[in-house]
This record gives sequence, structure tokens and C-alpha cells, in this order.
Amino acid sequence: MPAPVTDANLALAAELGQQLRVDSIRSSTSAGSGHPTSSMSAADLLSVLVSRHLRYDWDQPQHSGNDHLIFSKGHASPLLYSVFKAVGVVSDEELMTGYRRLGSRLEGHPTPVLPWVDVATGSLGQGLPDGVGIALAGKYLEELPYRVWVLCGDSEVAEGSIWEALDKASYYKLSNLIAIFDINRLGQRGPTEHEWDTETYQRRVTAFGARAFVIDGHDLAAIDRTLAQAGDISGNQPTVILARTLKGKGFSEVEDKENWHGKPLPPEMAERAVIELGGERNLLVRGPMPGDGVPRHPATADGAEVKLPVYDLGQKVATRKAYGDALAALGVRPDVVAMDGEVSNSTFADEFAAKYPERYFEMFIAEQQLVAAAVGFSVRGYRPFASTFAAFFTRAYDFIRMAAISQANIRLVGSHAGVEIGADGPSQMALEDLAMLRAVHGSTVLYPCDATSAAALTKEMADREGISYMRTTRGAYPTLYDAAETFPVGGSKVLRSADDDQVTLIGAGVTLHECLAAADQLAGEGISARVIDLYSVKPIDIATLTAAAAATGDRLVLVEDHHPEGGLGSAVVDALTGEGRTELDIAHLAVRIMPGSGTGEELLNEAGISANHIADAARGLLAKQ
Amino acid sequence: MPAPVTDANLALAAELGQQLRVDSIRSSTSAGSGHPTSSMSAADLLSVLVSRHLRYDWDQPQHSGNDHLIFSKGHASPLLYSVFKAVGVVSDEELMTGYRRLGSRLEGHPTPVLPWVDVATGSLGQGLPDGVGIALAGKYLEELPYRVWVLCGDSEVAEGSIWEALDKASYYKLSNLIAIFDINRLGQRGPTEHEWDTETYQRRVTAFGARAFVIDGHDLAAIDRTLAQAGDISGNQPTVILARTLKGKGFSEVEDKENWHGKPLPPEMAERAVIELGGERNLLVRGPMPGDGVPRHPATADGAEVKLPVYDLGQKVATRKAYGDALAALGVRPDVVAMDGEVSNSTFADEFAAKYPERYFEMFIAEQQLVAAAVGFSVRGYRPFASTFAAFFTRAYDFIRMAAISQANIRLVGSHAGVEIGADGPSQMALEDLAMLRAVHGSTVLYPCDATSAAALTKEMADREGISYMRTTRGAYPTLYDAAETFPVGGSKVLRSADDDQVTLIGAGVTLHECLAAADQLAGEGISARVIDLYSVKPIDIATLTAAAAATGDRLVLVEDHHPEGGLGSAVVDALTGEGRTELDIAHLAVRIMPGSGTGEELLNEAGISANHIADAARGLLAKQ
Repeated sequence: MPAPVTDANLALAAELGQQLRVDSIRSSTSAGSGHPTSSMSAADLLSVLVSRHLRYDWDQPQHSGNDHLIFSKGHASPLLYSVFKAVGVVSDEELMTGYRRLGSRLEGHPTPVLPWVDVATGSLGQGLPDGVGIALAGKYLEELPYRVWVLCGDSEVAEGSIWEALDKASYYKLSNLIAIFDINRLGQRGPTEHEWDTETYQRRVTAFGARAFVIDGHDLAAIDRTLAQAGDISGNQPTVILARTLKGKGFSEVEDKENWHGKPLPPEMAERAVIELGGERNLLVRGPMPGDGVPRHPATADGAEVKLPVYDLGQKVATRKAYGDALAALGVRPDVVAMDGEVSNSTFADEFAAKYPERYFEMFIAEQQLVAAAVGFSVRGYRPFASTFAAFFTRAYDFIRMAAISQANIRLVGSHAGVEIGADGPSQMALEDLAMLRAVHGSTVLYPCDATSAAALTKEMADREGISYMRTTRGAYPTLYDAAETFPVGGSKVLRSADDDQVTLIGAGVTLHECLAAADQLAGEGISARVIDLYSVKPIDIATLTAAAAATGDRLVLVEDHHPEGGLGSAVVDALTGEGRTELDIAHLAVRIMPGSGTGEELLNEAGISANHIADAARGLLAKQ
Repeated sequence: MPAPVTDANLALAAELGQQLRVDSIRSSTSAGSGHPTSSMSAADLLSVLVSRHLRYDWDQPQHSGNDHLIFSKGHASPLLYSVFKAVGVVSDEELMTGYRRLGSRLEGHPTPVLPWVDVATGSLGQGLPDGVGIALAGKYLEELPYRVWVLCGDSEVAEGSIWEALDKASYYKLSNLIAIFDINRLGQRGPTEHEWDTETYQRRVTAFGARAFVIDGHDLAAIDRTLAQAGDISGNQPTVILARTLKGKGFSEVEDKENWHGKPLPPEMAERAVIELGGERNLLVRGPMPGDGVPRHPATADGAEVKLPVYDLGQKVATRKAYGDALAALGVRPDVVAMDGEVSNSTFADEFAAKYPERYFEMFIAEQQLVAAAVGFSVRGYRPFASTFAAFFTRAYDFIRMAAISQANIRLVGSHAGVEIGADGPSQMALEDLAMLRAVHGSTVLYPCDATSAAALTKEMADREGISYMRTTRGAYPTLYDAAETFPVGGSKVLRSADDDQVTLIGAGVTLHECLAAADQLAGEGISARVIDLYSVKPIDIATLTAAAAATGDRLVLVEDHHPEGGLGSAVVDALTGEGRTELDIAHLAVRIMPGSGTGEELLNEAGISANHIADAARGLLAKQ
């Protein structure tokens, strides 16, 4: 516990609070945009937190004992950056000339281009779920006493993801997670849903298992007392501080007034505000230093040798099973952690859970929190694998997109993709996951067709930076590759090739098997077809594709168990047309219908992506000659 | 209120409950897949509901006074279809030979290919938010006494969207919404998070503003009493019935046992089950008939003449402003409703809200519920427009995908797209929305460049079937089109064209203006460039694209304020390569960086999609000759 607060502490905090307000106004006015009033409401909370409670070595942002400070309300970036000035890591000049400018690290919403920022925020309702992931790592893996402080806006509490986060925080007894709700009553376009109804907030967060404190967010002594209690992590509940505040607090012309969201004060108004707030200040304040920084289970590979599972050629094994096998094998690395959305017996993440229960985290059916937890583990240096049905990653697309901005290194594995799943019907069929994941900046998209490649690619993913996604298949198909084969990301495999190839068939996952069957049909008719296993959809093997196009008269049949937009076919065509003047004769087979139920085989046929259709398409291309 | 329950009623309900169990087992065993145990837990609840409380004319599923019955736990489809048999609209033969088979309407999870199903479910946590939309229509637009009964699984209560739904249901005092939580304690891979802790459930739903009843879900008298109370819509709260049940109830070999989720009973086991449950039955049961079906504000266009706003050529108007203007103009149609995610003063939906407050619904910052509400309004025949920042529709991708399966007709409008937004930074930049929406089955994707076309396309969307999406821009750009121009979906505009065109520049939205500026630059060098405004990204104007390629030596510069995957460039290349053997010489300019802050102009330049880059790309294509 920090030492009892003194009058001098409070006087300093009051001054610092005013400085944070003044700097929030100055920086946003200088930038001509930003959210000063949303910053001013939380200035007193941050003043006391930073000067008295946050344990942080500002000169060593990588110190593993540091507390975490996340602005889930990322639009309050003027306040965050003003804090960075107050602790002496950002100069007043940078604040005044950099904020929101081209090339500056002081972006409109915080991102980890700054060393003191863990995750990108600005899409609301994400900072708290991300914090859950960090707190899980702190409590269960590192066993370190750091705390995760998350500043939330009141508007964002309407996001369901906030409740997913509190639910998991209480389920996992994350006493090291402290959310501060800055309840300033005003959203962007008017009053929030619950305004200052702190009773409703209290009932809700308490019902979700949190310890709640209701305070006046401008009463410095109350803030100090509450932060001290909240910072005690010896309990078994997360904490939510419900701070009633005034938006624009401290400047009478905007305080608690509508229509001031996201608007900088005009220069002359900013001058009046600075005067009313007592003028500019340049206080330099530092709070307590971090505690122990030696984690019990550090996030290192630890030189562990991973022995991947081996499958016999021809053995029928589902790629999802191979994923589970490989993940369990990767568990020898202490930095590998896994989590799943209550379908681990389908994704086969349960193999890892059985072997390494201490590094497996059940997220139940809450895919947003599933991905956010992975981001949190990534912040602490772990290598998270998160799995669910491929279709249900659509639930977390905003989190995946933001994870890329967060520079997170996370691995997503989606099973049961495409019409191949059969009887369950379209709600369970991922038919847009490849498009969704390809469009994420810097992403990797993999789609193995057999157990050997699925296992090898799982291992590749462990060391991959950024957002990696692997699509796995429900059904069991023959193992095509020997365990000695390698599967570099960005590569492909040419499974059939001859000098007289007339057409190239390109598939991945289940359609690769259909391509092979089609090639057999065609061979029976004297038509030689090249077959490419495009297991790496992004990055893509341009050289092999270009060579195949050149060798087969530019005739390509592209086959995917996915809607026609943005998937494998699109990846191939984008790659080839990105290489200068190109001649192409494409047949693109994809799922252009709204499928229903049936067997996987029936539905592949119904969708026009089975071997017969592939062979027909190849014949069609050749008939045009 | 229904008449007091009699012993005969209860005896019938008991028999019907057993029949529903037997038929759930028989149908899933015959199909070889499905979820019998998840059906059996809720059989008593459905038996009493259907026989005594649900007001439904089964011969007139379109009767506008009918109650709604939504299986948010869509995997309990055997139970739902067994109910359909019990009320006589599906034969035992269809149930036994159709369930989960190819071409059958009895799909693995319910979809509206059945006339008694309102929305597709199977992605959990969506039926209740959809129900909120229906209940909003019933209470505020139609003023009809129908009730919306939603059966939820206990696992799905972990989805944040359930809490978004309850929050909005209580905010809007939806006493006509009744959720029944089937708390059978077991999820897919083991116990649920809260098992039978009905106290926790009760605290949570009560805190979220619902009236809660905790009952034994197999006590028929208690069920009847509670449904009668729940069905009284005179209050001002939604209702949640917390029914403690047994998974697999009624068959001792599976009742309350793990490892029976989503598994049909093997035939010999099914036989034992049917015996234990008292054998097959063929009860035909109907409950009460619907009440009044004449809505106060019917969902008709009412012959209203829509007078779109008119803009002067050259006048700088943001397309988001034109959307707001056009939406307000469309308000003369009583079937048009609007909703927004607490940013209506940015999307300009506030113009509609000001003019037609009774048909505007504020959804606050809860994008999943935003889209689900639109789906609900669509179920009742209204024409919903839902708006937020384009980036934040990623939050609702699973809902958008499911809306397509639901055959919903909804209109989504995303503002502030791309790096053009400038200083706010990447969290607010939609750079994957076109890819995301293109991949939705049957979707329409529009991206107007000026106010005239934005207004015209807003009107086009009103009558469009399926999922329509329009991307609007933050900044104000010159009006290019006269009010007399038409903008059919699937069309494009050729803005510059000459016989000696050497290259085609294709853009949409903000990049169209950059293309025009580039064409001017090139014209100064004697290079004639064709310019196409691709305002309809899906469907796409293949004829115009093909003609342009043919006329300009296949040289195309494709420019988009979007990541390179799956957007405008991909749409053009897919279209052209879908037309047989094609020669293409493409320069594809897209956002290949992770942008930061800056002005819109700076960031367009930084991303390489501004006029100078376009002109350079055109020169590059020509230099290769």
C-alpha cells in the first residue's frame, strides 16, 4: 500500500491535474483536432494514479515489473500524452508540434509506436478485454505483482465486449485488473444511455463479479483512497472504479456542456481556458517504481526442441486434428499459450489443454474476448494460439483489425471452414474468412490440405510476427506429404507437373484434393494438368504461379471453398496481375450460392467446386483454343 | 392472460414435451447429426409455450399479429422442427427424411427458408439482439400486441451481444420481449461458465433492467404460470426466464451427462430412449390465435414521392452529408427507419432523427445490436438504414454475415472511410470494409464520390434486397454530377473519354477525385486518360470496364483508399478475368502501409494513392510499350 496521502500530495495532484487539462487543451488546439473535453474529465484520476499509485519505471518501459496503463477510451489521447510529458518522456515541444501530425508518434489515438503504449485503442470497448489478457498472463503465467489499470469511457460500456471482459475477469479472479470508468455523462452526440446513474453501473459490474467503488472523480482524496484499495491485488475479484466526472471539467465555457465532444477549443477560447485553469505548468512528476520483474514462467522458447507429429502417407487425418497434435507438441516451448471459444473438442485445442492446463485458457463463447486475450498475452511476449470455428472469427473482426494496429503477434486457427462441413448449414460455414483475414495489414493466411502440412505450418506460425491465420478442415483427408517436407510461409507445392501440362489447377485445403481427383480424370483423357497446393494464401508464391501460368498457356482453374470475393482466387489473380502485363484465361470456381445442409461431398458438388466441376472447367478452357 | 391451467392442460403438455423429445431424437438419429440433448432440455418449456401461450396462426405465418418465436440457440433445431410437426405444418415424414439433408428446408440450424422462421441462427448470441429489433418495431412503429419469445442457450449468454440486447431492451422498455434461458449447465466441451448458478444469472439480467423469473424448466405448472406473467406486456421491462433444466432430460443414459453435445444417439440407443420416453406420439396441438394485426405505422412506401436534395455542380459537400440529406428526404416513406451507433452527428443520420424522431432508434456504441436491430426491422417489413463509422462495422461482421443467411434486407452506411479521414489515425480508418462487405453473399457495395450520386444511391438502397452497404467520405469534395443523372446499382460513370485514350484510371469515392486530377496532369503531357467512377463496386459494370480495357490497350490504373486485398482493385480484376481470356496491364494503388496521423491529403500521398502517384503509375504503364 502507498503511504497515507498528505496535504502536500493532494496539492501536487491538484496542480498536476490542472497541468494535464491545460496540456490536453494546448495540444489539441495546436493540432486543430482531438478530444480535450474527454481528457479533462479524467485528468484528476490520472493525476493521482500516475503520481501516487502506478508503479512504472518510465525510463524502462520494457521493465517486466511495470504496471500497465491502457486508455480503452483512446480518444483521450491528449490526456495520455500530457501524462507522458508530466513524467518527462515526451517534451512539451513534441506534444505541441507532433500531436496528430504526419510522421509523429503522437497519433490521434494511441498505438504502440510509443514504447509506453501496450495496445492500440480507439475502437471502443477493446482496451479492457486486452487488459484481461495481460492480467491473465500476470496472474497465471508470470506470477508477477504488476497491476493492469484501464481507463474506460462511459459510452464504451455499451459495447458487449466490456461485459465479456468483466465476466472473464471475475471468472479468472483477476484482482490485478482495475477498470476506471470515467462517467462524464456525455457521449459524442449527446447524453450517454445511463448518464450519471452510477447505481445502475454499480449493480451491473457487481453482478458481473467485480468489486465496485463509486467516487467523485474530482475528489482527489477519495481518488487516492480508492486507488490504494483497488491496487491491493490480494483479493480474488477485478475492480471497477465508477468515477462520476464532468466532461470539460475546469473550464466553465465547456464543462458538462453538450456539443463539445471531439472538438479542439479555438485558439482564443483555449487561451481563456488556460487562464481559468491557472496557466501553463511544467511539473515533472514520477510515482512509485515497479516491483519484482522476474516472471515464474517467462515467455521464452527456452531452446525446447519441438517434435511435430508424424503421419503416414495416405492416412486420413483432419487438418484440425493435426493442428491439435502440433499445438500439443509446441507446448514444450514455455512461451506458447492456447485459448479457445468453448469448442476445443472440435478445434482439437483440447490436446494442448490436456497436456498444459496451466497454459490453456478457456474463453467460453466470447470470441471478442478470445482474440483480445491473445493480444494481451502477446503484449507480455507470449505466443498465443486462439482457436474457434473459422466462421466465428467474424465475430472478432474489429479486434483482429485492431490487433494489427497494436503490432500484436497472435495466431488464429479457424476450423470447420466452408461448405465441406456439411449438415450444420451456412451459419457454421466460414465462407468469407480468407477475404477477412487477407485484408488485415501484414497478415499471414494459411490453408493446409493435409495433416503433415497443417502440423508444419502450426510450427511456422509460432515464430511468425503479426496476425497469422490458419484455416483447418472438418473432414479427414489423405495425408499427402512426407514428414520431411518443409512448408515455408509464402511457398506452395506443385503436386503434379509435366512438360506437356496444358492447364493448371490451383486449390488449397479441401479443394486441393478435388483438384487432384480432377487431374486424374483429365489424365484419363490425355490432358495433363499441373496441380498446385496453395497452402500459403498470403504471402503467396508468385514465382510458382507465374511459372505455371507460363507453362500452361495461362490457363488456370482456381478452386476455393469460399465465396468468390477476396479469397484464394482473388489472391492468385491479384498476384499475377501485379507482375506487369499478363495474359490470363481463368476459370474461378467458388461458392456462389447460399448453401444449405447436406453431406460435405454433396455440398462441394452443389457449389460447383468438386472434382467433376474442376475437370469440366479445365476442359472448357482447353476447348476455347 | 390465458385461462388458468388445468390438470388436463398439464397432462397434454407433459405428453407433448415427451413427443418433442422423442422426435428430436428420431430426427437427429435419422440424419446422423444434430443436437438432441440440447433440444431435450428445452422441450417442456416449448411444450407449454406452444400449447398455451404462443399466439400464432400456423396456417398464416405472415399474419402480422402473430407472436414471434426465435431459437437463439439455433442448434436446438430438432426441437424447433419437432414443434413444427406438433402444430401440423411439417409432416413426420419430412422430419425423418428431410432433417439436415441436401435440398431440405429443415437445415441443420434454422433459416428463413422456412416460413415460420424469422432469422437464421446458429451463430450464438444473435437471436436475442434480432428479437430486440422486432420488439422495437412492435412497440414503437406497429403498436401491435405481439410478443417476441426468444429461446437462448446458457452457453451463449457469454456473448457480449446478449448484454447489448438486454441493455437496449430495458432502455427501450421492451415488455414485449421475453428471453427464456435454457440453463442446462453443459456446453459443448464441458460445464458452462456458471453452470446452474441461477443467482448470478438473475443478478445480471436484473441489473441490466430485465424482470427475472427463476424456475425449474421441467415443472410444467411453474412454466405455465411464469409464461403467463411473462406474456403480459403491460409493464415497461423485458423479461428473462431463467429455467434450470437438464441436458438430455428424460433419457437416463444421457441426462445431465457430459460428452453428449451435438451428437445424435446411435440407432439402438435411440430406440431405448424412445421407449424410456414413452414411445412415439403424434399429438397435434395448437395454442391461442394471434391478436390484432393492423399496425399503426405499416411498413409500406405509401406512394410517397421522395424529393432528393439537389447540389450545385462544383459545390463541396461530403458524401456523408448527402447521405443524411437523402435519408431525411426518404423519411416521407413510412417504411424507412434509421438507427445509428451514437455517431449520428458524424454520419448525418441526425438529420433523419430530427425530422422523424419516432422512426429513429439510437443504439449507442453497440454495433452488433445496431445491425441486429436492422435485421429485426427487416423481419417486420421495414426498410432500415443503420449507420456508424465504416471501420466499426467490422465489429458486427458476424451479424452481417448472418443477416445474409437470414434473407434480411438491410442498409448499412459507413462514414469516415480510409486514410482520407486524416488525424484520427488507423483505428478510425476503414481499410477493409469493402473486402468484408463484398464477401457477403448477395451483397451490394456502393462507394459514391459526390453528393449527387450519394443521395441517388441512398434512394436506390431503400428498395434494394439483401445486404446493401454504402461507404461515405469524411471530407467535402466538389459535386460532379447534375441532379438529373441516374446511378443504377451495377453501373458506373465514364467521366473522361476520348478516342485516343491510352490508359484508364479507375477510382471511387475520394480516389475518383484524385483520378480526375491525375488525368488533368496527364492531359497536360498529351496523354489522354479515360476516367471511370466505379460507384458500384458490387455488382460491377463489366461492360464499361471491358470496353475501357479494350480501348486503352488493357492499361488500367486501379486506385483505392483501402488495403490492397479484396476491395475495388480486386473487384475490377475479378470482373475482367471472369470474362474469358484477358490481357491486362494493371497498376494497383492501394493502402499498403500502416498509416498514422496527418491530414487527409498528406495521408493519401503517403499511401501512394494521390493524383501524382496515379499519374506516375499511368506513365509507368505507357513507358513499357
